[in-house]
Amino acid sequence: MSTEKTIIAITPGDPCGVGPEVVAKALAADGPHEVCRPLIVGSVAAMQQGIDVAGVNLSIRQVTKAEDAISERGVIDVLDSGALDPNDIQPGVANKACGLANGQWIAEAGDLAIAGKVGASVMAPVNGEALMMAKAGGSLFGSDPSERYLTLLSGKLRIVHIFDHIMLEDVCRKLTADLVSSAIRKTHETLKTFGIASPRIAVAGLNPHAHGPQETNAIIPGVETAKQEDIDVTGPIAPDTVFRHCIDGQYDVVVAMFHDQGHIAVKTWGFVGNCALFLGAPYLFLSVGHGTAFDIVGKGIASHEMMHSSIMQAASLAEGRGFVN
Amino acid sequence: MSTEKTIIAITPGDPCGVGPEVVAKALAADGPHEVCRPLIVGSVAAMQQGIDVAGVNLSIRQVTKAEDAISERGVIDVLDSGALDPNDIQPGVANKACGLANGQWIAEAGDLAIAGKVGASVMAPVNGEALMMAKAGGSLFGSDPSERYLTLLSGKLRIVHIFDHIMLEDVCRKLTADLVSSAIRKTHETLKTFGIASPRIAVAGLNPHAHGPQETNAIIPGVETAKQEDIDVTGPIAPDTVFRHCIDGQYDVVVAMFHDQGHIAVKTWGFVGNCALFLGAPYLFLSVGHGTAFDIVGKGIASHEMMHSSIMQAASLAEGRGFVN
Repeated sequence: MSTEKTIIAITPGDPCGVGPEVVAKALAADGPHEVCRPLIVGSVAAMQQGIDVAGVNLSIRQVTKAEDAISERGVIDVLDSGALDPNDIQPGVANKACGLANGQWIAEAGDLAIAGKVGASVMAPVNGEALMMAKAGGSLFGSDPSERYLTLLSGKLRIVHIFDHIMLEDVCRKLTADLVSSAIRKTHETLKTFGIASPRIAVAGLNPHAHGPQETNAIIPGVETAKQEDIDVTGPIAPDTVFRHCIDGQYDVVVAMFHDQGHIAVKTWGFVGNCALFLGAPYLFLSVGHGTAFDIVGKGIASHEMMHSSIMQAASLAEGRGFVN
Repeated sequence: MSTEKTIIAITPGDPCGVGPEVVAKALAADGPHEVCRPLIVGSVAAMQQGIDVAGVNLSIRQVTKAEDAISERGVIDVLDSGALDPNDIQPGVANKACGLANGQWIAEAGDLAIAGKVGASVMAPVNGEALMMAKAGGSLFGSDPSERYLTLLSGKLRIVHIFDHIMLEDVCRKLTADLVSSAIRKTHETLKTFGIASPRIAVAGLNPHAHGPQETNAIIPGVETAKQEDIDVTGPIAPDTVFRHCIDGQYDVVVAMFHDQGHIAVKTWGFVGNCALFLGAPYLFLSVGHGTAFDIVGKGIASHEMMHSSIMQAASLAEGRGFVN
């Protein structure tokens, strides 16, 4: 038992999905309790179902405030604001009530993080349809979305994306030197808070072999600006080689230009234990790399590897001990 | 010894690069002699240097015509037209004479393939600079380049690229339903000649989650056209998941939209033993996935894995026995 370690808030995701069961499995495994005080921000009933499905030997202790989390092996501390009526849990089916509850847990965990009562918030899978029905989740953060970067962590492969879900033709049109230098700067600043004294940043090109108009007009000048700020940055590097260089340890992180550039690399590589974080968000926010997996809910077969990695990563980054891998 | 098996022509690449040494290592290893009759179309002197550097126990037998290749373990059959003056070999340095010789060997091997005297041509690494100096290599094939597709083979990951070295903004602008259906059709026809009776073809999208104007206007109608021709084709599939599906065996091949979409997948995955082929070329033409590696020429440390895979793959495809992996 400890009251020294950082508290990591964990929202169990959509209670109709595999979230509660993978959280239960992750907290029954070695690791999380050694590095942090895990705190479920969610529902006692949903977590009990998760424990039952997972078939793990855990009991629930309901706490009334975050700082009561004490990290005792075999016990899950749950902060339950009553957002969910347990009767609304329909395994494998999206519904508005669960979406609403899930949205509220994420907001509660975020408030705790902003208030400094927890070191990070880790999110189990949400269901987009349920969140939409509940009109929740549209803005998880109050900050300017242009200053947030979807970031994937996959072992030694770490990728910050300048553009997320926009059309490829718009990527080509909208890329500017300012966007590139801002992303590099934010990456540099954030990795320093994670405990990496001098982050080695690689920047991907956009075109084959990193030769094209966007390299000339946006990426090269953006990288140059960052270099003048004494940031350790290299690029543009051919998009097809830069990710392997990162896996091989040549860089700490790659700044990718668009969604699939980074996502193809991560998903094809196939490392187990991916998580996502939003670099530039007002607090440390991580999410597992998989979905609600409605088709296998309740079977106890969902893998907890990503949830486990996400908790371990969150604890390490929150305490400035660098990346886990 | 055999005169039954298919002859596979192998051009040893730029004689100043690692080509001759990796060819020597590959032919000293188990495999190639069991499945084909390897025939070097190149230089006796360059191959002798390659054997010496590789430190393998091989002797050279000069043949005067392709059909004299007999696949004897420990012996390399070499067809040497005298294109190279051995004095021009400068290890690790690009020069015009070697570029010229290399270009001529590739043309000779191609002529043998077109005449049906060899089943395929396998190319060791060329040096672009040397080829340019020699003004060779500009058109390796006489066929219409718009009907050729750069294809990467990397274990179970096999990728046909619709566009190669063009700017990403041009990919967005130039993609049409005709280009998509033509690539699918050519992939289907070619894989059938490789011995795959009903190739399962996946088509990547262009935009995140395969939702965007190019999907609507080009990819979806292109796939529909191919389906009406009774081709087993699925798509567009989200670009970030399709390559992993192929690795997992769900498809035989992926049709990718542009160079880095496929190249990021292959190079990040990191399978050892990649090779490239030009689908739609007038003869079966394979190339190793690495370069001349001028920095390590002559040290005997260059890996022959890709050359070995390329020869094994060429022999299997030429005889219609399907992909090796």
